[in-house]
Amino acid sequence: MEEPLVAKGAWRAKIITLFPDAFPGTLGLSLTGKALDMGLWALDALDLRTFGIGKHRNVDDTPAGGGAGMVLRADVVDAALRQAAIGAPMDRARWPVVYLSPRGKPFDQAMARDWSAAEGMTLLCGRFEGVDQRVLDHWDVQEVSLGDFVLTGGEIAAQAMIDATVRLIPGVLGNHASTEEESFSDGLLEHPQFTRPAEWEGREIPPVLMSGNHGEIARWRKAEALKLTEARRPDLLAK
Amino acid sequence: MEEPLVAKGAWRAKIITLFPDAFPGTLGLSLTGKALDMGLWALDALDLRTFGIGKHRNVDDTPAGGGAGMVLRADVVDAALRQAAIGAPMDRARWPVVYLSPRGKPFDQAMARDWSAAEGMTLLCGRFEGVDQRVLDHWDVQEVSLGDFVLTGGEIAAQAMIDATVRLIPGVLGNHASTEEESFSDGLLEHPQFTRPAEWEGREIPPVLMSGNHGEIARWRKAEALKLTEARRPDLLAK
Repeated sequence: MEEPLVAKGAWRAKIITLFPDAFPGTLGLSLTGKALDMGLWALDALDLRTFGIGKHRNVDDTPAGGGAGMVLRADVVDAALRQAAIGAPMDRARWPVVYLSPRGKPFDQAMARDWSAAEGMTLLCGRFEGVDQRVLDHWDVQEVSLGDFVLTGGEIAAQAMIDATVRLIPGVLGNHASTEEESFSDGLLEHPQFTRPAEWEGREIPPVLMSGNHGEIARWRKAEALKLTEARRPDLLAK
Repeated sequence: MEEPLVAKGAWRAKIITLFPDAFPGTLGLSLTGKALDMGLWALDALDLRTFGIGKHRNVDDTPAGGGAGMVLRADVVDAALRQAAIGAPMDRARWPVVYLSPRGKPFDQAMARDWSAAEGMTLLCGRFEGVDQRVLDHWDVQEVSLGDFVLTGGEIAAQAMIDATVRLIPGVLGNHASTEEESFSDGLLEHPQFTRPAEWEGREIPPVLMSGNHGEIARWRKAEALKLTEARRPDLLAK
């Protein structure tokens, strides 16, 4: 693949992973992919295996104190983080360093907004049982979770977080920019949507939406959004 | 790619998407990929575009009542859902039909467990502003959200949910099976992990983990898990 010309100072994701082939993956398609091709953002996948130890490039070992699974070694992860740190500012506000882990703070839109305002970020994808705690402490790595579920590895979580972040970078959505983000920001779920045909399988579009009365339409949508949020996500209203 | 021999009755994901090339993506690597190759589960990506209308295979139209973005048409999505329904039971407990949407119920481990016990599922990936509400009602589609953030489309969310689900299918994790899932199920975040070397950058592994006293180790880990959960996720303790 030809290296795209990257805009000077373009936002950059550096990903430390045992599966560099997973990237860009879905991020290489659609609007994020077009923006990547245009150099509006950039992606480096660093193969953790190349920092492994010995002939077999070992990256992990058994947990101290016993238990199932394997733990990524501090020295191996450290070598990868050093490599990723080249050319990146040490200030974590300007360049977050994140470990994808179910132990982390849950990812949300506010985090995506903060990250999109940074110069780039480093994402460490775990596998197995986890990462030696000492390297996380040493590097002041922020642990972030995609949600309350267990994934095989951090790669898909990294893609989700990069997608949510990159689409907030100016120019990425282009004229596809929509009110989604803003509507989410008002703390309510989106009202139902309808489009042509006006009647389908005996079901009509709610007449108010066909009325042309913008005030009525806005009121109806707000009421529907409120009703839906009460039914599905009362926790959002409590905030 | 050669079609793998799929075990009779193997769990199957049918994905309706405008980006079929996004699949299997990361799901084709690592343990989920090996299990896919072994036929322990199967994946069909249905290209929504092929169900589009007219010469340009249009799949969307402007929102009734006005507003930004585009809405996927009820008749187009219906045609794709009909295709996906072939060979799948109508009982939603046996075959969930899910639309990936920030308006949905938040995805969690309990949902992954339920889905992994089904025969398979259909996942509808949105793009743009949304889907005509009538087709969601007509098909009794369950809306599920990956979290409180906005993605460019449903494809990465679908991959995350399939990953979390597929790894619970017997045989998929093989002898990599670990205590992750169980430890998550006890409602606490995982305790810190350590591995060799015993000392790294002046940091030692906590002596208790090197003591060989299994009772002490278990108590220390439980206390650390509790401390971490209190600090990061008091909401989990409240449950």
